[in-house]
Amino acid sequence: MDARNPLNIGAAARAMSNFGFQHLRVVNPYDVAFEGARSAVGAAAVLARAEKHETVAEAVADCSLVVGTTAIGHRDLQHSLERLEAGAPMIRAHLATGHCALLFGSEKFGLSNKDMSHCHWLMHIPTREGHTSMNLGQAVAVCLYELVRDPDAFAKLEKGTPASAAEIERITETLFTALRASGYPKLNSSDSFEGAVRRLVRRLNLQTGDAEFLLGMLRQMVWKMKNGKSSEETQG
Amino acid sequence: MDARNPLNIGAAARAMSNFGFQHLRVVNPYDVAFEGARSAVGAAAVLARAEKHETVAEAVADCSLVVGTTAIGHRDLQHSLERLEAGAPMIRAHLATGHCALLFGSEKFGLSNKDMSHCHWLMHIPTREGHTSMNLGQAVAVCLYELVRDPDAFAKLEKGTPASAAEIERITETLFTALRASGYPKLNSSDSFEGAVRRLVRRLNLQTGDAEFLLGMLRQMVWKMKNGKSSEETQG
Repeated sequence: MDARNPLNIGAAARAMSNFGFQHLRVVNPYDVAFEGARSAVGAAAVLARAEKHETVAEAVADCSLVVGTTAIGHRDLQHSLERLEAGAPMIRAHLATGHCALLFGSEKFGLSNKDMSHCHWLMHIPTREGHTSMNLGQAVAVCLYELVRDPDAFAKLEKGTPASAAEIERITETLFTALRASGYPKLNSSDSFEGAVRRLVRRLNLQTGDAEFLLGMLRQMVWKMKNGKSSEETQG
Repeated sequence: MDARNPLNIGAAARAMSNFGFQHLRVVNPYDVAFEGARSAVGAAAVLARAEKHETVAEAVADCSLVVGTTAIGHRDLQHSLERLEAGAPMIRAHLATGHCALLFGSEKFGLSNKDMSHCHWLMHIPTREGHTSMNLGQAVAVCLYELVRDPDAFAKLEKGTPASAAEIERITETLFTALRASGYPKLNSSDSFEGAVRRLVRRLNLQTGDAEFLLGMLRQMVWKMKNGKSSEETQG
């Protein structure tokens, strides 16, 4: 959550407390907003353990699913977008195997493209077309309600343990290192290229073991690209 | 709605606007609260037509169904009580034939026994037992969301066209070429390694476009590994 207003932070915490969610992480809050929120009605326990983080990457590092919330609107979204009703069962299914972060942008600007690049997919609340922008505390309440709604409707368990955001980020970084070392042509020619690669890696549905496996391969290729020709050719 | 706080009236109006509800009726508000609410973000149309009433009876006079909302708690309720998920379909069904009022109490005291006496039945939001009392604006948002919620909304995350077996095979082969060129150690040491790589590629859930994208990256890396040191090092 990115919030500048203590009322919004407090309202989000209260909805979390109402629906039984405990881990509030606030990215880069104004200190005064963060401290001001501590007085919000009925949310003392959630606020007492709320964490401040400098970046979205840090806030979601231990999560293997990151879902961004958006009011859609005019932006040209490059992620897949789910209605809340459809996204919630996917999140519940994921929670059986790993942590999930639900990412809310600031009330004024929503999530930036950079914020979204950390997301596996996006979700929107089915508001009326003429007025899609919700109050932050209300949007949090509606999303969490949908998550606890009808708890018997359980989707089937996924196999394996999904890779964490930190693992996925390591792969992304190593892939960029490899592309730079290889002289990949589009790397510097387009601002959107980095985002496209980040989304690609997040679409790969990586499990923890798979992530390590791929990382080892990429590192070996990077080493080779930086340390000379292949041995057959050197010998030839 | 019985509300003393302009922020609460405004928040309720905003949620109504978000979810397409138009008729806000406020019972016995402080004038200052009612006027103060008129500045709430994005709720101008709802607030402009909001009505003030002296009594609950007057406010619900034209409604053939009146549903009270309550945080339950300790009160000895004499009405039948429905969870929101179960109550909403009953309200939707009623709306086909007549008006329905959803009655919210003040944030501090909830609905009085006298207020409830106007209700056909009561409804509660499934909050956690230890913290049932919701912020008024959030409670309104959650109830209205449930009313417009689409039970048939289905997940459509499997967008795009899955990569064909031939595309996946091309990626697999190119990955082996890259691993050989990189001198990847396990490549010849284990019979099971090839199978592990093949399964890994097939777990990646690749779409057609993604497959092409990855293939281009891998080919560039192969070219680089076979054609010498990275340019920085060559120049260095």
